[in-house]
Amino acid sequence: MDYFKESLHLHKALKGKIRVQGKMDVRTKDDLSLVYSPGVAEPCRAIAADEEAVWDYTIKSNTVAIVTDGSAVLGLGNIGAKASIPVMEGKAMLFKRFANIDAFPICLDTQDTDEIVETVKRIAPVFGGINLEDIAAPRSFEIESRLQDIGIPVFHDDQHGTAIVVLAALINAAKVVKKSIFNLKVVINGAGAAGIAIARLLRCVDNKDTDACIAVKDIIACDSKGIIHSKRNNLNTAKQELLSYSNAEDKAGTLQDALVDADVFIGVSKGNLITADDVRTMAKNPIIFGLANPIPEIMPEEAYKGGAAVVGTGRSDLPNQINNVLGFPGIFRGALDVRAKRITPKMKLAAAFAIADFIDHPTADMVIPATLNERVAWRVADAVKQAAQEE
Amino acid sequence: MDYFKESLHLHKALKGKIRVQGKMDVRTKDDLSLVYSPGVAEPCRAIAADEEAVWDYTIKSNTVAIVTDGSAVLGLGNIGAKASIPVMEGKAMLFKRFANIDAFPICLDTQDTDEIVETVKRIAPVFGGINLEDIAAPRSFEIESRLQDIGIPVFHDDQHGTAIVVLAALINAAKVVKKSIFNLKVVINGAGAAGIAIARLLRCVDNKDTDACIAVKDIIACDSKGIIHSKRNNLNTAKQELLSYSNAEDKAGTLQDALVDADVFIGVSKGNLITADDVRTMAKNPIIFGLANPIPEIMPEEAYKGGAAVVGTGRSDLPNQINNVLGFPGIFRGALDVRAKRITPKMKLAAAFAIADFIDHPTADMVIPATLNERVAWRVADAVKQAAQEE
Repeated sequence: MDYFKESLHLHKALKGKIRVQGKMDVRTKDDLSLVYSPGVAEPCRAIAADEEAVWDYTIKSNTVAIVTDGSAVLGLGNIGAKASIPVMEGKAMLFKRFANIDAFPICLDTQDTDEIVETVKRIAPVFGGINLEDIAAPRSFEIESRLQDIGIPVFHDDQHGTAIVVLAALINAAKVVKKSIFNLKVVINGAGAAGIAIARLLRCVDNKDTDACIAVKDIIACDSKGIIHSKRNNLNTAKQELLSYSNAEDKAGTLQDALVDADVFIGVSKGNLITADDVRTMAKNPIIFGLANPIPEIMPEEAYKGGAAVVGTGRSDLPNQINNVLGFPGIFRGALDVRAKRITPKMKLAAAFAIADFIDHPTADMVIPATLNERVAWRVADAVKQAAQEE
Repeated sequence: MDYFKESLHLHKALKGKIRVQGKMDVRTKDDLSLVYSPGVAEPCRAIAADEEAVWDYTIKSNTVAIVTDGSAVLGLGNIGAKASIPVMEGKAMLFKRFANIDAFPICLDTQDTDEIVETVKRIAPVFGGINLEDIAAPRSFEIESRLQDIGIPVFHDDQHGTAIVVLAALINAAKVVKKSIFNLKVVINGAGAAGIAIARLLRCVDNKDTDACIAVKDIIACDSKGIIHSKRNNLNTAKQELLSYSNAEDKAGTLQDALVDADVFIGVSKGNLITADDVRTMAKNPIIFGLANPIPEIMPEEAYKGGAAVVGTGRSDLPNQINNVLGFPGIFRGALDVRAKRITPKMKLAAAFAIADFIDHPTADMVIPATLNERVAWRVADAVKQAAQEE
């Protein structure tokens, strides 16, 4: 099937992919008097008297805003708010499908950090959570961080969703190759939102002092100019900060230099960047996650040729699809169910372990559950809930 | 039935009254590849190449934001964004029920005019129309007026929805009492959003120069301090402006003074304000619309005792319920169907006449269609569409 052509037809025929539906019919005068005037005044009064009642009497407890500025959409880049809508509608469908969450696209006609922050604050009353989506780094870091105290979880899925699912796959891949996760040397290629969040989660940057810490030995992060090290010019703040928890030996060089003796390659960059020869320079039984879409950094066949032991991609037509869908629905489900005020590092780790634990006996071709397995989200939700309650 | 008590139970049981639903199932990998990555990239690209394609490939063409700041909610007043949510959800149900429109509540955590205006502009990309709701006057006038050029209709229902339905009822009531609408002397009590919009529409202020003009002879507007006239102190801008198209003789005095010899009383104020004795001082066969909820300015029985010929209220348990539900669903349906950029005075008049024309033979007890008559919205939509296309 030509997904592109068919998808265009589908979108045109459906005129968008989501709808808003009443939870009950309004047929009689009594119906009208209960869902609207005069009866509706009573839940309004209850909330006016006690703000917390908004969780009981409105859609807030099950509703998430998918907020984007259209600046970093899929592999398409900065296509703007309107062109991003089909992606956000698709995401809303996945929220519904996997976690029965009502999600609605808020596609903003601004790419200014301050304006995005204040707009999200203003629209927050009706939402129980905010999923930031496809907002370009490093702006996305600041936006997310400035929104952490608004009383509902604000979660940038491109960062943390990706990091959580990658960690889940890595936990199982390490088992397959019989290496301790704590001793892994990891190369991350791509230092945008996803790359940095993966590095932080794998190095346990945000929860060093808790019992819920799991950290790989070392990470080398690369961007399009090669290894990120302290002598590089013009590193943005996020990349400078990265140096405090990566590249302990302050190596310089190319991506290829970084790969020598590494145990793991994680690509969140673009297609066809490394070869079998590069994989051959890595440590024995390397783990290769090439997540660029639709063409991974290295195709599985080529990676195996170079000696890879476990290979994952972002593609649905290949084994070990490392896809955010395994994360965000259950994470938000769990957070909403306990009315969490934020999604903490402990909740994120719990989600990663729940996804990993879903696979009883990991093998090279099965380090992560199938994307469409609908039981995953409920397991994740449960784990996230428990972690939240323990805090 | 105790609507208040039952409504509270209903809201708690349903946890809010609307949901977001996918328009198709996502069961297979193909489904996922079509509604989300990779296929979704194609409609995104199509919109990036031609912004207008957003109407074809997304929910925009059928989606309306119900925007409030919670400052003037029903009869409850300034209860804030969270407490307003049940009303906005109810409104969304009515949009769906009567016009198959997907409407979503945007309840803003700000009551600042500038902030509301800029927030609406920023969230506009995904919406085909904006229904402003329960925003206090005179702020609501400025907000609406500053949003007229954003490329999609912005319609303050408390103003224009009410005015349109009142005009519809008045057209038929005038037929019942065999008076020409052009010769009517009208008293409006209440000079907030609804009162001023009614006055403007009845005096044809916004479309004097078009063929679509219908104007009553004179209006006297009153507020809680009595007749609005030029010697009054501290009139806000909206009330000052009102004097240019009302109270031609610049009368001073009380509401009771205003009623002497008037043909029509329209109350958008509060309950139990006038008596049968007041009605007796009006012209012969007076028309009485007491729209305060839940207690009208005068109960029908009392009005008839004073000699009223036609009586309407806002109540569903009495004849001639003058309710916005007869207006906004069809008005937005028509506007969305022609992708109107604004809702013009001509479209508003067309809506009023469509509602009035729905009643073939008006009688004292039937000057307006039943609120739950689902055919009204489609007739209104058609009329609005036609008016838009003629412009």
